[in-house]
Amino acid sequence: MEKDSVIILSGGMDSVTLLHYRRERIALAVSFYYGANHNEREIECAREQCGILGIEHIVIPLSFMSQYFSSSLLSGAESIPEGHYEDSNMKSTVVPFRNGIMLSVACGLAESRGLKHVMMANHGGDHAIYPDCRAEFVASMSEAMRCGTYDGVTVSAEFTGITKTDIARLGARLGVDYSKTYSCYKGRARHCGKCGTCVERKEAFRDAGLEDPTEYE
Amino acid sequence: MEKDSVIILSGGMDSVTLLHYRRERIALAVSFYYGANHNEREIECAREQCGILGIEHIVIPLSFMSQYFSSSLLSGAESIPEGHYEDSNMKSTVVPFRNGIMLSVACGLAESRGLKHVMMANHGGDHAIYPDCRAEFVASMSEAMRCGTYDGVTVSAEFTGITKTDIARLGARLGVDYSKTYSCYKGRARHCGKCGTCVERKEAFRDAGLEDPTEYE
Repeated sequence: MEKDSVIILSGGMDSVTLLHYRRERIALAVSFYYGANHNEREIECAREQCGILGIEHIVIPLSFMSQYFSSSLLSGAESIPEGHYEDSNMKSTVVPFRNGIMLSVACGLAESRGLKHVMMANHGGDHAIYPDCRAEFVASMSEAMRCGTYDGVTVSAEFTGITKTDIARLGARLGVDYSKTYSCYKGRARHCGKCGTCVERKEAFRDAGLEDPTEYE
Repeated sequence: MEKDSVIILSGGMDSVTLLHYRRERIALAVSFYYGANHNEREIECAREQCGILGIEHIVIPLSFMSQYFSSSLLSGAESIPEGHYEDSNMKSTVVPFRNGIMLSVACGLAESRGLKHVMMANHGGDHAIYPDCRAEFVASMSEAMRCGTYDGVTVSAEFTGITKTDIARLGARLGVDYSKTYSCYKGRARHCGKCGTCVERKEAFRDAGLEDPTEYE
């Protein structure tokens, strides 16, 4: 199969599953360091997973985001709210237009290397609070990328219509080692088990009927 | 008038004219340092123009572009082709999806500060070789930004339908000091007068019937 894609790889469950699922089409994986509490631990997982699969991995620094953007995700573990994603206080963790920025940079990388697609692992459960994860955002961003490049680069977001539980099931079939993924927004050595992303992670394993390999605090 | 906009300000003729034209609506001007030959001289002009108008100005570093992106604009003065923009060799100066990246970052800044619009000074003459200056790109990017933000941030690109000659006429009416703008892709102390952007600059002053205040080599 032709290697025609760049993937945006955070190092969390979703993008790591997509990395394994589409490994034969992925020429390059890109992680972004934007000063979030959990960035370093996530990126270490991303690097390890790319090493396992023999996929080139680069890290792009976006340090201006922690300097100029407003989000509790950029403000230290103490400011991260606990509870479900759907709760309105989780809105404070939104980093304005983060996916737009990551897709744009990945689009430029794709065009620089003659690749056709940017893969992103946004999924159904993300939509409630994150406007830049919704299907309509992905479609219009893909159209902007197509118009704005010579080669007509597009977004491939295969998980848009499925849930994190579906993703966990897919990953289990593919043999993904989820102990080498990191989600927690607090960014400490072990997952807190209480923030929105930890709650979602736990529920995905439980609802998929899988053992959760995560060490929680 | 309400200050509801961020402007992408390179420090060239076009964006400086837009800065003066819409100064009452602009809360923040943002320049991007991406390692192009002419970035430092451009940004110095951007800073000076914002100082004249009392508008806040920030510079966002995008240093990964010179590391990972392919473009003669990022490769030193010697690699810049000479002649008109329309000529196919000018394509080498395209920085892949640059306007998409700058619009995305400016969109995140706008949402972080409660601003509604991102102003960009792309114009009619740009379209021939730059896909990310065309009206269809601007429209789809604006739609992606609207979908991907809580406040529905949009792009305002008022010069899309006019030429650089029209822009020069507008600037002259507004009293813009074009000696404090920089265009040359070679990035040396004086404009080379021969690269695509210098040729276009000269022609704009000539066709507008204005004196060209630029010192050429």
